[in-house]
Amino acid sequence: MITLTVDLAERSYPIYIGQDLLQQPELLPPFVKGTQVMIVTNTTVAPLYLEACKALFAGFKVDAVVLPDGEAYKNLEILNRIFDQLIGGHFDRKCTLVALGGGVIGDMTGFAAAAYQRGVPFIQVPTTLLSQVDSSVGGKTGVNHPQGKNMIGAFHQPQAVLIDTNTLNTLENRQLSAGLAEVIKYGLIRDLPFFEWLEQHLEGLMARDPALLAEAIERSCRNKAEIVAADETEQGQRALLNLGHTFGHAIEAGMGYGAWLHGEAISAGMMQAAYMSQLLGDLSAADVARIAALFKRAKLPIYPPNELSNAQFMQYMAGDKKVQAGVVRLVLMKSIGQAYISGDYPADTLSKTLTDWRN
Amino acid sequence: MITLTVDLAERSYPIYIGQDLLQQPELLPPFVKGTQVMIVTNTTVAPLYLEACKALFAGFKVDAVVLPDGEAYKNLEILNRIFDQLIGGHFDRKCTLVALGGGVIGDMTGFAAAAYQRGVPFIQVPTTLLSQVDSSVGGKTGVNHPQGKNMIGAFHQPQAVLIDTNTLNTLENRQLSAGLAEVIKYGLIRDLPFFEWLEQHLEGLMARDPALLAEAIERSCRNKAEIVAADETEQGQRALLNLGHTFGHAIEAGMGYGAWLHGEAISAGMMQAAYMSQLLGDLSAADVARIAALFKRAKLPIYPPNELSNAQFMQYMAGDKKVQAGVVRLVLMKSIGQAYISGDYPADTLSKTLTDWRN
Repeated sequence: MITLTVDLAERSYPIYIGQDLLQQPELLPPFVKGTQVMIVTNTTVAPLYLEACKALFAGFKVDAVVLPDGEAYKNLEILNRIFDQLIGGHFDRKCTLVALGGGVIGDMTGFAAAAYQRGVPFIQVPTTLLSQVDSSVGGKTGVNHPQGKNMIGAFHQPQAVLIDTNTLNTLENRQLSAGLAEVIKYGLIRDLPFFEWLEQHLEGLMARDPALLAEAIERSCRNKAEIVAADETEQGQRALLNLGHTFGHAIEAGMGYGAWLHGEAISAGMMQAAYMSQLLGDLSAADVARIAALFKRAKLPIYPPNELSNAQFMQYMAGDKKVQAGVVRLVLMKSIGQAYISGDYPADTLSKTLTDWRN
Repeated sequence: MITLTVDLAERSYPIYIGQDLLQQPELLPPFVKGTQVMIVTNTTVAPLYLEACKALFAGFKVDAVVLPDGEAYKNLEILNRIFDQLIGGHFDRKCTLVALGGGVIGDMTGFAAAAYQRGVPFIQVPTTLLSQVDSSVGGKTGVNHPQGKNMIGAFHQPQAVLIDTNTLNTLENRQLSAGLAEVIKYGLIRDLPFFEWLEQHLEGLMARDPALLAEAIERSCRNKAEIVAADETEQGQRALLNLGHTFGHAIEAGMGYGAWLHGEAISAGMMQAAYMSQLLGDLSAADVARIAALFKRAKLPIYPPNELSNAQFMQYMAGDKKVQAGVVRLVLMKSIGQAYISGDYPADTLSKTLTDWRN
């Protein structure tokens, strides 16, 4: 087992990574403050791991709420089901919530924990590659609004993160690929050696080699933990984590949440950012082709959906959280392994990107 | 104008108290971070003060959302209307929300500000006595759940609080009395001299003498600011502010939100706490009669509604946020001006209180 620490002073917490961690009942109880534990999961994950997760909290009063599965359900209405069950079960302000599932479950459970009785603790047990390398680390929580992703939420750090890499054995291929999109992202924004390592080992990762997956998760979480420790509430460099996300969020919202997986949408979005970086004279055409090749090997889309017009893209991007004073701020690349944030680019470079980078 | 400061390190903020402050356009703009201001108000307050409030923000992009008036609308569904308007109007994460109204508007606007894009700043402009002396100070925000008051929310401090005492001239008598319940509370929990001052000046306050009202507001806010500065997130003494509230919340929920005003419910609730303190041997019968006399002069109820049975009281109280490990923790009084928190009282003392203290 590997233990990483997210260093946030009194809000610091450990990330445990390894095989069979859902069979280790000594790890999580130290992070439960009171006597009541509410596990939040979904209809896909519950049959696979809910009983094992419950068994981690022997001696506590454990209940569970099972939500429908999918990004389409990440909204205030479904969030309220968590509150209904907490209040109906007389869960008090010393209860602990546990997020058992992917990124949607983690984000919703975290926000429910942030808001229930004005804040209770929670633990992340991510079961998808995407949530293991991204959303379970860093404390961003929230739900979607019909017109924008994650528009309603809170910064709320977990008490601990438990990543059992065995859970990846039950993941659909499409979900594994979507997770690899976020893994590749860390290489692109700040870690050229990791990008090169991924180029060497991509097929092994797709074949679910446990040691390779554990290393990819560790290196991803380490990158994310360093960024979050330096900039918890995204005043500066944390925004680099949004490479491809402004384009990607437009794809997700424009196609209807759930049609494209988040990882698929940001894969196409990172390619749009790469192409735009080429137009700005920073990346070479060879760099762009090199990035596209890796996404293709990971079975990820490199082009946005043609159903989404330039005008629709601009409309959704204008509603993004990264907009300030009407300017769409984008994460772009100086080189592979070095991203930056800019609101200062020629408007026609963005529109040319939306026009040119099409299938 | 009086200026108090709520002392919370980097989250410190001023409270301005005085007449005609809604005509002083230099006070609030320094607290607006970006260029966009969204005023949240209700159908009762908007015709009276919305134009004056908008005029305080000359040079900014100002929009307003007008909610239905009343505690019955303090829920997630109505909260979502604020998000709809913010997102529809492309308000970014540097926008500022302004709460113009009573406690319901302040609590909802504060929670909307806490959650919108994971947190934007807000300003309180309370227009009822109750919100001026209580809910606008201290950063507690939230909405109700059908089974419990303020069960969903956040701690989120405002940038500034502007209290124009002129707004009390348009307040209904019943609302003025409800506000006096919270004013009297400060005397009961920690300020005997203030309680005695209120005994001297109650009729002047009911007649809306501006100087007396300003002094009552100042002394109330000063008490609250001291408590909040010492215990921002209610780990300890801040819970004293809940005198009468566990009983009162049961009354509000049991009768249906809005049937009893919050101030009316906690007035009866403080009398229940006083009677229970008498049963426990701390207050004398004369003390209880003295407190009841002041509430009566303020035209406030001293008994709970007979429609609410002891069993219903216990059911609602068991769902209160102050419950820990199944024990209902109550704020009680050692003497007038000295409250304490206890989960350690004979169960039959509580049931005897519910039985005896009836009209």
